[in-house]
Amino acid sequence: MTTDWKAQYARRLEWMTTSAIREILKVAQSPDTISMAGGWPEAALFPIDQLDQVAHHVLTEAPRESLQYGLTDGLPALRAQLADMMSEVGIPATMDNIAISSGSQQALDLMGRIFVDEGDTVLVESPTFLGALQSFKAYGANLVGVPIDDEGVCVDALERLVRETKPKFVYLLPNFHNPAGVTMSLERRRRVVEIADQYGVPILEDDPYGPLRFQGDPLPSLAALDAERYPENAAAGAYVKGNVVYLGSFSKLLAPGLRVSWAVCPGDLAQQFVMAKQGADLHTSALGQAMASEFIRRGWLPAQVQRIRDTYRERRDAMCEAIAEHFPEGVRHTHPEGGLFLWVTLPEGMDAVALLRDAAERKVAFVPGAPFYVDGSGQNTFRLSFACVPPDTIREGIKRIGEVIRAHMG
Amino acid sequence: MTTDWKAQYARRLEWMTTSAIREILKVAQSPDTISMAGGWPEAALFPIDQLDQVAHHVLTEAPRESLQYGLTDGLPALRAQLADMMSEVGIPATMDNIAISSGSQQALDLMGRIFVDEGDTVLVESPTFLGALQSFKAYGANLVGVPIDDEGVCVDALERLVRETKPKFVYLLPNFHNPAGVTMSLERRRRVVEIADQYGVPILEDDPYGPLRFQGDPLPSLAALDAERYPENAAAGAYVKGNVVYLGSFSKLLAPGLRVSWAVCPGDLAQQFVMAKQGADLHTSALGQAMASEFIRRGWLPAQVQRIRDTYRERRDAMCEAIAEHFPEGVRHTHPEGGLFLWVTLPEGMDAVALLRDAAERKVAFVPGAPFYVDGSGQNTFRLSFACVPPDTIREGIKRIGEVIRAHMG
Repeated sequence: MTTDWKAQYARRLEWMTTSAIREILKVAQSPDTISMAGGWPEAALFPIDQLDQVAHHVLTEAPRESLQYGLTDGLPALRAQLADMMSEVGIPATMDNIAISSGSQQALDLMGRIFVDEGDTVLVESPTFLGALQSFKAYGANLVGVPIDDEGVCVDALERLVRETKPKFVYLLPNFHNPAGVTMSLERRRRVVEIADQYGVPILEDDPYGPLRFQGDPLPSLAALDAERYPENAAAGAYVKGNVVYLGSFSKLLAPGLRVSWAVCPGDLAQQFVMAKQGADLHTSALGQAMASEFIRRGWLPAQVQRIRDTYRERRDAMCEAIAEHFPEGVRHTHPEGGLFLWVTLPEGMDAVALLRDAAERKVAFVPGAPFYVDGSGQNTFRLSFACVPPDTIREGIKRIGEVIRAHMG
Repeated sequence: MTTDWKAQYARRLEWMTTSAIREILKVAQSPDTISMAGGWPEAALFPIDQLDQVAHHVLTEAPRESLQYGLTDGLPALRAQLADMMSEVGIPATMDNIAISSGSQQALDLMGRIFVDEGDTVLVESPTFLGALQSFKAYGANLVGVPIDDEGVCVDALERLVRETKPKFVYLLPNFHNPAGVTMSLERRRRVVEIADQYGVPILEDDPYGPLRFQGDPLPSLAALDAERYPENAAAGAYVKGNVVYLGSFSKLLAPGLRVSWAVCPGDLAQQFVMAKQGADLHTSALGQAMASEFIRRGWLPAQVQRIRDTYRERRDAMCEAIAEHFPEGVRHTHPEGGLFLWVTLPEGMDAVALLRDAAERKVAFVPGAPFYVDGSGQNTFRLSFACVPPDTIREGIKRIGEVIRAHMG
């Protein structure tokens, strides 16, 4: 076979193989290692019995809906439920604004497919979610990073870069940022949607963790603030005008293995999504959609989400307390109010990859931060997940990392 | 929002909206219409009770496997089972040759992603599967049709076009072709893999219906014939060298709503598939994969496939008999030995779209053939599916179509 891969694919290959960290993380995956490296939710919180009940229900009571070919835009009942859920949090969505995707990863891919021609600029936070970089890179995007701090994306830098680079869209994670664990302030959110309006630039708001807030009051989504700006939306009772594509997911609320997520699209963008999706995978698992829909219909989602919040809060607390006790001075970290991740910044000049190598030998693992940056910075940063490790184990893991940090500092 | 779609996307939009047939087919979808238009399997044959049992089993006995994030290449147990199944039919696959996809539609999309740069030629049969055209078009492929007849693709034309157009790959449906219902002869199959070898051109062998043979003896797949050519494969007990990517699917064997298919990839192509898939949707539904794997493990697949074959054979017989009785002289049709589809060719100059308009009024529907051709031909052809309609209803539907044809002829 002539392995005459396309040019864009060669670029992708390069991107995927330059990460030496993969190898170390493989070592760190041995069962006796305390891994705070994953991006996974806690499997012990999967509502197994309830999912078993809804699977039985939809397979036997609605076999065509759960087993036959489905519509590319998604199961109508689920789209209607999601429109209601979105409206309750201030996004005036109707079914026509909702497109189901096979995980949010697919929604990121479809955004690339719809918007990005070779060389087009996409603005991303610096750091940002690795999977998004992979999706956008596959379409030849020129990725430009916008700095973030404890209040989320720096809006002055954002405005300047929007003006200078004329991006096809801006990708943002306002709640409990992956990897940084920070939450965008209300003031910044308002400014982001102003910038979007002023420059006519689409915003891709990725919110897989939004419902998992375990501290403080919820903030309105960018989509909700954006929708408020245009009287057409209130008049239509729909998100007919706006600049924000909002992504939600069942992966962290129910189970990622179902691969069911959704996009809220303003105007006629949902139709573009659906056309792009048709050639990509025809439709999302009908069984997964039917199960999510029945789970919501039975009213089980709020208690399930609360159970996750309670567990993650306890683990976040354990992690923050252990860091205060075991990490040396000069090491900074974020204080997530929700989600799965906490971000650590070592003193300038320290190398998180070298740290991981030694940490892996001490049977503890995290993810070095550099790959989350598009500009090669972040060498002195790393990500910790508190989602999948019980509090006592977190304390032991943080203690070990603290010892390795001290050894590297001294 | 600036609706500054990318250039390739605009092309796609044009492609999707030029089909006036969609509107007629919508009318034809009313519940009192006899529809032989769908590409769907018979829902009454879904093994509901068995799927319910395996869903319960995997959710309660293997919740991590069925609900947590999974590997991009697929559930290892399923990949191993598929490697065995493929080896039994002469493709010397190991797990490393198998990549799971979210339906074969995704595999088609990934082939485009891996191989096709704007303007690259892809050879397809004329006619061919519409969904493949959509996937390849999205990557800017220059689609060139190769004629087929009752023995499948015309190999002399194929060789000439391979030489002249230097395609990135050739897309073929050897068994019970969609839409044409024909099966490629053994002699042609041998010639196709010779051409692939001689010119180093990859073949994409799409075989969703292969196991659904209800007449005659099975023929070896292109992948099996290709693998035989290179002693390296027998020596390695794996498909280490070759030119054929084989696509199989559970959509027509179990249920399409699960969205579980697989690609058998020679050499290191599976790794390319997996890298391309990672950015596309991370992985295929873990639940669907676990259910398919457990279904196979329990040994239920052969009887399920036999049940489908028996039903479809009875319906194919009813359709062929009714055509012999009700269609006028001068109308030709294929005699499928498996699968779902039968292809009708009207006398030159007749228009299947005009026919459908009148047929829809008589409450019977089929799919006009022109959209299955990349060169605008096929105006006098249409596709019938016998999969979803009971024999008596098929007879009534064919009778009505025969009357409409006579009216158009006379």
